[in-house]
Amino acid sequence: MVGKFISFEGPEGAGKTSVLKVLMPRLQKQYGSQLLITREPGGTDNPVAEAIRDVVLSPAYPTMDIRTEALLYAASRREHVQKTIKPALAANKIVLSDRFVDSSIAYQGAGRELGMDNVRALNDFALEGFLPDCTVYFNIRPEIGLERIQAHRQNEINRLDLDSIEFHQRVSAGYHQLAQQDPKRIVVIDAEQPLEQVIEDAWQAVNRVLKMEE
Amino acid sequence: MVGKFISFEGPEGAGKTSVLKVLMPRLQKQYGSQLLITREPGGTDNPVAEAIRDVVLSPAYPTMDIRTEALLYAASRREHVQKTIKPALAANKIVLSDRFVDSSIAYQGAGRELGMDNVRALNDFALEGFLPDCTVYFNIRPEIGLERIQAHRQNEINRLDLDSIEFHQRVSAGYHQLAQQDPKRIVVIDAEQPLEQVIEDAWQAVNRVLKMEE
Repeated sequence: MVGKFISFEGPEGAGKTSVLKVLMPRLQKQYGSQLLITREPGGTDNPVAEAIRDVVLSPAYPTMDIRTEALLYAASRREHVQKTIKPALAANKIVLSDRFVDSSIAYQGAGRELGMDNVRALNDFALEGFLPDCTVYFNIRPEIGLERIQAHRQNEINRLDLDSIEFHQRVSAGYHQLAQQDPKRIVVIDAEQPLEQVIEDAWQAVNRVLKMEE
Repeated sequence: MVGKFISFEGPEGAGKTSVLKVLMPRLQKQYGSQLLITREPGGTDNPVAEAIRDVVLSPAYPTMDIRTEALLYAASRREHVQKTIKPALAANKIVLSDRFVDSSIAYQGAGRELGMDNVRALNDFALEGFLPDCTVYFNIRPEIGLERIQAHRQNEINRLDLDSIEFHQRVSAGYHQLAQQDPKRIVVIDAEQPLEQVIEDAWQAVNRVLKMEE
């Protein structure tokens, strides 16, 4: 069996992080130390990527320019890929990342209106053609996603949550475009279903990739 | 009179930082608070750019990937331009920067062999067409520059100094190509002359730009 890289993607409130938490122990049971769970920006056991994460997410810099942000996300991703993801895949591991390149293209490219192609070009420089074997995309209408965020996180609102509904609609449209452009890699899951069903769909999507090579 | 932006460029050991130190009090005398001296990576009074500088230059990360480095330099430059240089120019200031975009193209593009066009493209994303009014390029043969470094900094050798002579030759060739491509912006100074003459030539190059608009 060879290593596999799976990313989880979706807008705020789609539930992907919650689902990942449920799937983690199940996968751990099945794959044990072969499994590596990581997330962006930053990355598990990756000091450079985490240092860049600290700069990009620091509340000390509320006015950070959006092009700076896009460059920092790409820089952090480069370290994540070179020092964490690729070495794990070379050791036959299964790598699951909460967010990856599609987040940048949807959020900075479409949401922040830098242009999806511009942000893709930066990331092409960073990734040199490297992409996940499979991306599980949690599809939810932006207004439903935002409602969920408001209901669940009353005391813990981050900067992105405060953006306009128009911003979230652009992000969503960006994700849809990505899913259409790359249907072989991106598996779309209906994240508006009851949580149990979303978990089940995600579980099956992940297992489909992992069983493929066995 | 409108603001002017002048960058100082050149390989290691060309003496540009020393010359800048001599010119600074002269310019201060003439232009006083109208003058802003800054440098890259990072930038005067620019916390985000300095935070990125700290990551890119930290000895804690000796194995930083060269593409990560190029993305971080571009990110830091974006902040430098948006938050420091452009506001100063809008306030009619004279901005002198020790290194700017040509350093990235010559060092990462040519020296580290990422490709001058690739590194230029990243910086086009960061700069959106913004360039210095004038770039004073301190031209010196790489072997002479390295000799000077070894003579002067016996106790303070940085990572770049340790690179091969081939690396420094590529950087030098990169700078030459840039100077040929943009002779209107880039003024070439012979940095192998006696220091007094180099200072004089740099002083005249700077004054030529500053007097232009008076």
